[in-house]
Parts: sequence; C-alpha cells; structure tokens
Amino acid sequence: MFQLLSKDASSEARRGRLTTAHGVIETPVFMPVGTQGTVKAMSPQELRELNAQIILGNTYHLFVRPGMDVIRHFGGLHRFMNWDGPILTDSGGYQIFSLAKLRKITDDGVHFQNHLDGTPTFISPEIAMEVQATLGSDIAMVLDECPPWPCEHEYAARSLETTIRWARRCKEQSAIRDQQSEIKQLVFGIVQGATFADLRRASAEATVQIGFDGYAIGGVSVGEPEPEMMLAVENSEPFLPDDKPRYAMGLGTPPQLIELIARGVDMFDCVLPTRLARNGTAFTARGTLNLKNAEFTLDKGPLEEGCACPACREFSRGYIRHLVKAEEILGLRLTTLHNLHFYLELMTRTRAALDAGTFAEFRRQFVANYRTREAQS
Amino acid sequence: MFQLLSKDASSEARRGRLTTAHGVIETPVFMPVGTQGTVKAMSPQELRELNAQIILGNTYHLFVRPGMDVIRHFGGLHRFMNWDGPILTDSGGYQIFSLAKLRKITDDGVHFQNHLDGTPTFISPEIAMEVQATLGSDIAMVLDECPPWPCEHEYAARSLETTIRWARRCKEQSAIRDQQSEIKQLVFGIVQGATFADLRRASAEATVQIGFDGYAIGGVSVGEPEPEMMLAVENSEPFLPDDKPRYAMGLGTPPQLIELIARGVDMFDCVLPTRLARNGTAFTARGTLNLKNAEFTLDKGPLEEGCACPACREFSRGYIRHLVKAEEILGLRLTTLHNLHFYLELMTRTRAALDAGTFAEFRRQFVANYRTREAQS
Repeated sequence: MFQLLSKDASSEARRGRLTTAHGVIETPVFMPVGTQGTVKAMSPQELRELNAQIILGNTYHLFVRPGMDVIRHFGGLHRFMNWDGPILTDSGGYQIFSLAKLRKITDDGVHFQNHLDGTPTFISPEIAMEVQATLGSDIAMVLDECPPWPCEHEYAARSLETTIRWARRCKEQSAIRDQQSEIKQLVFGIVQGATFADLRRASAEATVQIGFDGYAIGGVSVGEPEPEMMLAVENSEPFLPDDKPRYAMGLGTPPQLIELIARGVDMFDCVLPTRLARNGTAFTARGTLNLKNAEFTLDKGPLEEGCACPACREFSRGYIRHLVKAEEILGLRLTTLHNLHFYLELMTRTRAALDAGTFAEFRRQFVANYRTREAQS
Repeated sequence: MFQLLSKDASSEARRGRLTTAHGVIETPVFMPVGTQGTVKAMSPQELRELNAQIILGNTYHLFVRPGMDVIRHFGGLHRFMNWDGPILTDSGGYQIFSLAKLRKITDDGVHFQNHLDGTPTFISPEIAMEVQATLGSDIAMVLDECPPWPCEHEYAARSLETTIRWARRCKEQSAIRDQQSEIKQLVFGIVQGATFADLRRASAEATVQIGFDGYAIGGVSVGEPEPEMMLAVENSEPFLPDDKPRYAMGLGTPPQLIELIARGVDMFDCVLPTRLARNGTAFTARGTLNLKNAEFTLDKGPLEEGCACPACREFSRGYIRHLVKAEEILGLRLTTLHNLHFYLELMTRTRAALDAGTFAEFRRQFVANYRTREAQS
C-alpha cells in the first residue's frame, strides 16, 4: 500500500507513494478539508484542476447531516459529492470533543448530543468504523480520545489507555468488515499522549503493536505553542515504522508543514487555506496578505507574482479586495482557489526538492522567506 | 446598431440583433445582473460557458464601492472584473430611490446619503452619464425618477416631467462625451408614467422625440400586480419605434418574460434567477423547486431532467439539497448556475422559435406547463 521511495539525507523527510482504492497519492501530500461533503467554496472539478490528490471528509458532520441513511442511499460519499479521487475520513472523535454537547465518555464509547439539534447519540469504536465503511472512504481513522491542552500527565495517561483499547476494537471491526467487502479500506491508528514524551512513545509503540496501514499523530494543533507541537511529533516519529505513512492531523501553516516534513511526516490536512480565504487572507511565499487592507485598493498585480492559479491568472488584488470588502461570493472563491493552490503547489515543490536531493536548501529558503504574521495563528 | 431581423405573425414578438462595442447581442436577450462588479456567485468564465451575451452592472453600487477613482484606475468595469463581453449599466436612479437615505430631489438632480456609510452625495443627469462613461459600459441608461407604486396621477405626471428634462440633459451630455471618446457608448431612454395610459404614451413619445439608441420601460416591477405591469408595457410599446431595441427593466418570472416578448420587448434583466438560487430555489419548465423541502432528500435525479447545465450534468437534487441545508457555498453556486442557464436557455429557445415561426405554439406550451408557486413572487 505504501512505498517509501527515498529518504532525505539532511532530515527525516521522505518521498513516498500511497495506493488507495481510488488512486495513488504521492507524498508528502496536503489534503484539502471537505467537512460537510464539499471543500468549502470549491467544486470537485476545481479540486481536480488544482491537482488535489486526496480530500478529507469529516465523519461527525456527515453523520449528523445528511446522516448515514442518505449517504448509504447515494452509494457512499464519493458518489454523493461526485468526487472520484481518494478520500480520508476522520473518526468523528475530535468533533465530538470540540463541537458536541453533553459528552459522556465510557469505556464503551461516547454519548453526546449533536451540535445541530441536540439529538442524543452514541458512538463506539465499532460504530465509528461502520460509519466510515458506509462513507466508503479510502482511508479510515480509528476512534480516539483527544485530550485538551494543557492537561495533566495522569489525565493524558488514562485517556491514552482508552485510545489504545479503542484502537484495538477498531482494528478488529475493520478486519470483520474486510471479510465482507470487496474494497480495501485502509485504516490508520492515532498516536496520542499530549505533550509528554513517555506517553507519546508508549502510544506509538502500542499503536504500532496493534498494526495499522498508517499512523497519525493526533492531539496536536489543539492550542499548544508551536514548540510543543513540534516536540509531540518528534517524540512520536522515531517509534513509527518506516514503511507506513505518517499523518499529522489538523496542521498547519506553510513553514510548519515544511518543518514537519523534515521531521518525517508524509500527510497533512488543515482548514487554514480555506478558512483564512473566507476571511480575505491570501497565502504567498512571503507570508499572508490581508486583502481588507487599504493598500491593495489600486493594486493591479495578482495575489502572488508568478502564481499559476486561476485567481492569479485572471484577477487583480484590487478587484479581489473589492469582492472581499463587498462580501461577494466570488471573492472567497478566488482566495480559496489561490490558497489551496498555494498549499498543493508547496507540496509539489517539496516532492520535487526531495526527488532532486535539494530539500535542505528548499527548506532553508522557504522558511527564511516566509514572514509569519498574526493572521496565521 | 440594432437590426430587426423578423417579426412574429401572432404577436408583437421580434427577433433582433444589437451591435455594441464589446460584441453582438441576439435578441430577445436576458442579462444576468452583476450588481457589485460580479454576477453573484459566478465567475466571468462560468458566465461565458453559460453563453451570457451581456451582463448588467449597477452604477449606484459601483459608484459607492469601490468608487469611480478605483474603476478609472483599472481602466473601466470590463477590465476591473475581467469580463470582455457587453455590459449595460443602469443610471443609479432606481437604487438611489430604493436604497439610499435622506433623498432630496431637485430639478438639478438628487441629493442623497449612500446606504453604506451615509456619505452625502449628489447625482445629476450629467454626472450619471459621466459615471457610466467611466465604467465604460456598452449601453448606458439615462437618469430617471422612478415613481413608487401606487402613486397618484398628479405625482406621476410631475415626476415624468423631471424624467423627460433629465433625459434631454443626458442626451446632451452623451453627445459631448461622444465627441471626446473613440468608443461609442449606446444610450437608452426610459419610459415612465406609472400605471397611467396617457402618461405612458406621453412619456414614450417625448423620449422618442429626444432620440435614443434604445428604449427601456421603467417603473415596472415596483410592487404592482402583474396585470398592471403588463398594461404599463402595453401602453408604452406602440409608441416606440420598430428599429430600436426595447428593454423591460427588472423583470421577471419565466412566463412573464415570454409574455413580455409577445408584447414586443427585446431585453430583460432580473435578479430572480440569482437571488432565488441563493435561497435554495431552482427554476424548471414546470415551475420552481424549493430544495429545502424534505421530498428531495433521497432524490438522485438532476435539478431538471434533460438540463445540460453544469449542476445538472454532475450533481443530484439530494446532494444539492444537502449543500443548501448545510449552507455550503457550492450549493448556491450550483443553483445559480442552473437558474442562469434556465433563463438564458429560455431566451435561446425563444429566439429559435421566432426564427422557425413557431413562437405562438412555444409561448402557449411554455406558459401552460409552468406552474407559478409562491416562491417566485
């Protein structure tokens, strides 16, 4: 399923290739987030034209609306949304912990009320896998408990025990499903352990012991400072096998992606490019632009000089600024197109640098040129 | 500029061809409304693919934001928004009367405060023409006063006097402009007169007397019942010359368009297809569908069977309903694409029927099949 093509001499960075039921994914890869069965403001056709290799769907959101009866009726998420490329679905755990109301975690699973109409619902590791089987995603994630930041060692350790027990049950459930299904759904385990090195190691080792098609690093991007986030990855990565893909969940800014690739991560998903786009913020190699700023009013240049995205080929900063200020839908369509292009192109360039053996220089230059502004955090 | 190609034997309907600086327009024609320098939710590329022949821009909105300094800097509205087809701009009068605050009408012009930040502004017939010259539209409209509905004969008659004096000043101003400019901007006069047959006739005759490149029928779609609206057109049309295009402003539903074409109208603009789309309503030959209705939840069919629009080619009613319910941008993009396609295709079929001499039958069938629901009014 995963082929490790090469390793970088200067870092832990890797070039790989992941084969899924709906296509082959070159890694490192960025996965645009399609929370509710659509990558916000984009059409599937536009995602194909942006060369998105795989998108992410949020199980919790789709479970709540339109619900699994609808998805089943339409023959799965691919057909429902008319996207025939690979899809990764999360387990829903993260959203239950961040969005849902009146959560109660038992060893069996999680009782909660959904955020839309408060319907009492129960999700277990087995149900999480069944829901993802119904969605028909190419990559399913195990149900985990994601501790908040900050949290005590004792809480994180107990939470981790739950996550590992649940991972085992997810694996068992997916084995049953595999016997019934013709399509092989990959299943990724999730490493937790908060900011504690010993727990990260224990989590990675126990999860690898169970055995999955890939390993995610979870419990990052939950409010912790960037150095803590980097440490969480550094404390997990050495205990993950070379021959499986690694996925850092919910990350990050462009330089964070490069730095995490240098730490051995292969896969990313993040709402930043789409969410900031809808706020009028555009990514460039020098940092972000806030198009609401008056300085762009008369600017005839593209969002980024030399960019080949549809927004930059046809429209000026001044026009896009006007659209953003006037709250026109085309404004956020164009900034979303540009930002996704930026993230996807960054991964294309990273893969090319890894192939050419120039990743160290590419990393140095990119991170040095990129000016972090407040808008990104 | 305008070539009358044929007249229908069964009605006042006409096939025509209008030549503008940015292209030739086959009439009858529907003009999608691009209020703030963008047809809401659409890209110029999509409008080209929908075969939109001409779009409308709202002078008032563009005057207020981004303002004429910005438009001038970018070399006019076409370049600013990256649309190289024909554009018609209204004069701004209608929006001043419907949106702006603290209006004061003098014989000289209108004092008002804009609806965004209350900036006190003055617009005169001369300024309205200058602003439209800056926008660089292919067709400019004279500044008129649009009386409310209902209104007294005396008010309508006085208002009409103002409109006629202003029309004369617009014509004079555009003649001055023509001597300075290389590009010929067409100017249309506007027939007012509320619901009074004598005033409609007087308005049409006086406006034709001044002499314009085309004639609009204004003061319709201001809240009056449909029979009143039809009468306003019927009372104006006989006094307009055959060899100039006629434009019914701000109309209407699909059967209204067909009925107005039968009364001799060549050009239309209306926000219905785009506005109702954003409310989850789709047009079909049998009437409108409200996609929020639960009946569409499991519907695998397209918005309209046999429709060739991008939304119907790729997506189901059930999926689009999900997007609408989840308030996803793709939902209103798809319904907007479909509705604009529906309006534009309706005009294509009307022209074909006129060319084939089958308009009477086409009109009868279309109006009989189309079921008017509350959502359209």
